Amino acid sequence: MENSVLKNVKGTKDFMPEEQMVRNRIRRTLEEVFEAYGCKPLETPMLSVFELLASKYGGGAEILKEVYRLSDQGERELALRYDLTVPLAKVVGMNPEMRLPFKRYEIGKVFRDGPVKPGRFREFVQCDVDIVGSSSMLAEAELISMAFTAFERLGLDVYIEVNNRKLLSGILQELGIPEDRAGDVMLSLDKLEKIGVAGVRDDLRERDVEESLITAIVAFLQEGETTLASLAERFSSSLVQQGIRELEQFFAYVQGAGVTGEVRFTPFLARGLGIYTGTVYEIFLQDQSITSSIGSGGRYDKIIGQFLGDGREYPAVGISFGLDVILTALLMRTIENDERSVDVLVVPLGTEALSLGLANRLRGWGIKTELELSGRRLKKALDYANKEQIPFVLIYGENEVESGNVVLRDMKEGTEQTVPHDSLEQRIREAITNK
Amino acid sequence: MENSVLKNVKGTKDFMPEEQMVRNRIRRTLEEVFEAYGCKPLETPMLSVFELLASKYGGGAEILKEVYRLSDQGERELALRYDLTVPLAKVVGMNPEMRLPFKRYEIGKVFRDGPVKPGRFREFVQCDVDIVGSSSMLAEAELISMAFTAFERLGLDVYIEVNNRKLLSGILQELGIPEDRAGDVMLSLDKLEKIGVAGVRDDLRERDVEESLITAIVAFLQEGETTLASLAERFSSSLVQQGIRELEQFFAYVQGAGVTGEVRFTPFLARGLGIYTGTVYEIFLQDQSITSSIGSGGRYDKIIGQFLGDGREYPAVGISFGLDVILTALLMRTIENDERSVDVLVVPLGTEALSLGLANRLRGWGIKTELELSGRRLKKALDYANKEQIPFVLIYGENEVESGNVVLRDMKEGTEQTVPHDSLEQRIREAITNK
Repeated sequence: MENSVLKNVKGTKDFMPEEQMVRNRIRRTLEEVFEAYGCKPLETPMLSVFELLASKYGGGAEILKEVYRLSDQGERELALRYDLTVPLAKVVGMNPEMRLPFKRYEIGKVFRDGPVKPGRFREFVQCDVDIVGSSSMLAEAELISMAFTAFERLGLDVYIEVNNRKLLSGILQELGIPEDRAGDVMLSLDKLEKIGVAGVRDDLRERDVEESLITAIVAFLQEGETTLASLAERFSSSLVQQGIRELEQFFAYVQGAGVTGEVRFTPFLARGLGIYTGTVYEIFLQDQSITSSIGSGGRYDKIIGQFLGDGREYPAVGISFGLDVILTALLMRTIENDERSVDVLVVPLGTEALSLGLANRLRGWGIKTELELSGRRLKKALDYANKEQIPFVLIYGENEVESGNVVLRDMKEGTEQTVPHDSLEQRIREAITNK
Repeated sequence: MENSVLKNVKGTKDFMPEEQMVRNRIRRTLEEVFEAYGCKPLETPMLSVFELLASKYGGGAEILKEVYRLSDQGERELALRYDLTVPLAKVVGMNPEMRLPFKRYEIGKVFRDGPVKPGRFREFVQCDVDIVGSSSMLAEAELISMAFTAFERLGLDVYIEVNNRKLLSGILQELGIPEDRAGDVMLSLDKLEKIGVAGVRDDLRERDVEESLITAIVAFLQEGETTLASLAERFSSSLVQQGIRELEQFFAYVQGAGVTGEVRFTPFLARGLGIYTGTVYEIFLQDQSITSSIGSGGRYDKIIGQFLGDGREYPAVGISFGLDVILTALLMRTIENDERSVDVLVVPLGTEALSLGLANRLRGWGIKTELELSGRRLKKALDYANKEQIPFVLIYGENEVESGNVVLRDMKEGTEQTVPHDSLEQRIREAITNK
């Protein structure tokens, strides 16, 4: 075969076992946490009717450019899904008898034919948890609590930035920003922490925002008073006041939930997507070893209803976790011993059939066990165990069969002991526990 | 939105939580069993370079018709993978330094634009475990052992039919079947158990097999002597003898592994695919509630080497499990209680913030807990718990807050008890354990 076809599609990669074991740990941790909160798994197809993705929806023309299109033998116009939110809206629309609130999670591949950067793929896994049908801030508090629990279990110390779109929109209204410029201004303000006030001014100029509006915004930023209390005093519109009430409720609930992680009110956090209507949040690593967010989300009360156009309201709020950015964060840390593949390697020396039974007894005791399959000699098998960081090797030769023993080798200590079969379970459990 | 786009692509479906919970259980069981044997996870992309799928390979023109093709913005010719074996061969070829044997599993979506039948989708999950780089029958014995362990844990009673391609090819050679008709004859013989000797004769005639050959085959089938011993006596070619030696080794190893499940030697089992070179097997339900196989595989020693064309040999053997046929089998059985979503529903009555903390304490004790989010009244919340088969409800009103208690309701018994906070963990654990 020509080597030219032996390659991966641009923007995709193989996850080899070392990385995939960590990804599986992330996935299982998220699943366990979501399920502990009563969220249920949903699996939607990756193939979508193209018109479903093209229909009027938050993503719009921007994202449609990145949609992979295809057709089937029946000449149907299809596409690969680009997120897990459109499929969720579709499921809600197709199941009008569904009991709300519907708390679902979905962990699955999505596809975007967009720019490729380090850590940014064209085929990638999203981990979404959403609550559809509750307009209470209880839903936000539960999601924030899930996020902290999941990251704590993964050993990642995170903080969460929170804002409210009503508050931000209301402030911009009162500063005299016309509605058609509010989106651009939000995108500039979103960068405030990174680029500072002067940077925001330059960014606004690049976006051709009127100089008088820029002056008003910069003056406000220079006041520097951006606590909830000071904003409540300075801005009086009902939109701002409603945003503040929601944030106060949110913080009271987060405290009630016993969340001990840091939740920062960040008044210029915007989130790019136009779909959000209330609370928005982004999750960051405390140590800033990765500066981009490792999870984010918010409340989008209107979009499912608009999308379905059935005249009903579907208040909704969710978080999306990026599997591969979390993977990168974990791989930057010290190696976890959890990811060693097995506890024991069984090496048969002329005792293949009996060794199969020995390996299965160990597995029956809950001990992960690999059997040497390729007839390697003892020295090579021990080299293999060393390289794979397998802590124990059981050597089973004909002498051992005759005497009713096996030889247990501790790879780290380099020591061997002869163990009778009837005390093997106890000895090997002790050995593994003491590692 | 027009309802016409609110639909799924032909041959795909949404797996709603009730089914998806069972699918997750199947997936996790398989993963745990594979890992207990030292098999490691691999994740390959779903998008493939089209030429990779089109290159000379077992699937051939037949399967290429069912490949979904697409292109990206860079006009690259892409396709969706149709199995997990080509991606495995690709990974082996792209990683020449890889240590063999490579024991990997992959559970993931594959796509085939083919005929749609009940239980047969165009986008479906394959669960493959393969061992590349071992020509020993130990590999087969380990795979068979994994299969029985996995199905035992899933509560499915299965048997496995086994044959060897060398044996079958050798028999057909000695019966005088020319090589170019052997494939057709194998496909006919594969149906022997279903259609009987007369059926096979008709089937061979439909395939235009010469009458003299049909006579020879039918005569042999009517002898009825198809034990390993009788075949060893009747057929003397080295191919038959090698097949018999491999099967004897296989059965000795399976016995050594302590497998207690039924493994049937089935001399006319062929498996459709042309890639197999030695052992082949299919897994069936003992109760025949589904008559098609629920898993299958075999040894394919040549295909990876031919595919890569690097002059090296890659003996390989694997099993593929069908997630959705296993799902169907499990759903036909009595409902498992495992799949209830949560153990406890917490219903706040004006105590939302405190109830968030109460729910989180329960989750901290490892108890799956849902919090009532939509402000339902008590009666409606209890109805919900009933419908969802949630066994316990904690009612937390202002009276309870004042007195330092919560009310624990057993939904099945319809009884309630008032429990002080400091004995809640113990009481609720007892209650759940006794369910």
